[in-house]
Order: sequence, then structure tokens, then C-alpha cells
Amino acid sequence: MALVRQEIGDVLRDLRQQKGHTLRQVASRAAVALGYLSEIERGQKEASSEILASVAYALDVPISQIMHLVAERFEAVETVVIPDTVPTEFVTSFDSASMANSR
Amino acid sequence: MALVRQEIGDVLRDLRQQKGHTLRQVASRAAVALGYLSEIERGQKEASSEILASVAYALDVPISQIMHLVAERFEAVETVVIPDTVPTEFVTSFDSASMANSR
Repeated sequence: MALVRQEIGDVLRDLRQQKGHTLRQVASRAAVALGYLSEIERGQKEASSEILASVAYALDVPISQIMHLVAERFEAVETVVIPDTVPTEFVTSFDSASMANSR
Repeated sequence: MALVRQEIGDVLRDLRQQKGHTLRQVASRAAVALGYLSEIERGQKEASSEILASVAYALDVPISQIMHLVAERFEAVETVVIPDTVPTEFVTSFDSASMANSR
């Protein structure tokens, strides 16, 4: 199951790297401890609303954009349907030839 | 300044009320203490990612939708510009007559 803190962490890291900033630069600008920001980016710590606002400010990105990006990442996960059983028609048509073609 | 926990709280309450559920029903279904859910809805407590996932499940709403709604609420706040100074042309045209008209 995807968790909000993991998706927020990925989004914050992506945005930081897109802007060519180091962890140290963003942590300093946001007045957040370097190790704490690193844990947030890795989805290991929940960012409080105040910390998230500081990091967004340090990245010069509106919080709305961060939230939309998080929403989009959840959409991608939510649309993946893992079937309980493999449909019969798939099993019968599945052979090594079709597998090779799909590569 | 708008904070993420306040916007999340408003979104969760709106969704719950749209679906006609009571706090007690959602708290029970999400296995969250009633008082805690109430504090989350009022923006007084940060919801952990696990709690947020449980509440989203209890509301039968995908997390992506909650995040998009939160993003939209931030957009509405972010587009409000509060000027540092009042423009001169506004000061000169501002009199009691125009004030009365605007009511």
C-alpha cells in the first residue's frame, strides 16, 4: 500500500533534483535539520504541516503543486488492478511464443 | 497561512458530510478514536499516513481524490494576493459614496 509520506517524500526529492539543489541547500533554506529532511524524502518520517510549508517555500514551489503531484502518484497506483485469479482465456492463450512477442 | 492539516481536515469533513456519515460511523469503520478523528477534521492534529489511509478507506474515497481536493483548496488561497501598499489610484477614488455603492 502506498502511503502519503512516501509519495510526498518522492515528490519533494524529485522537485529538489529538478531544481538542481542539494539536500543541504534545501535543509538550510527551510531551517530543517539535514537528517530530518533526508528521512522525509525517503518516506521514513511524517513531515508536519509547518515543515512541509517551509520545504515548499525553500523549493519555491506552491503547496498546491506538491499536493497535485502526490495525487497523481496515487492515481497511478490506484489504477493498477491486481486480479485475484488469472482469467481462463489468458491462461489458454499464454504460451512462450506470445511471451517472446511481447518483449 | 493555510496549513496542510487544516485543508485535509476540511476535505475529510466535507466528504464525510456529503456521504451523510457521522463522525462516530467513520471513526468506527476506520478504527480511529472518535476524539482523534474530530481533532483531525478540525485541523488540530496531523493525521499519520496510516490514519489517513484508514479514514479514506472508511469514506470509500481514493487518497488521490483527497489530495486533489487539498491541492485545489491551496490553489484558492495561493491566488489571493494581499498588496503591501494600497495603490494611489485606489486611494484617490475611494470615498464614502463608492463605499456606499459597494454595499
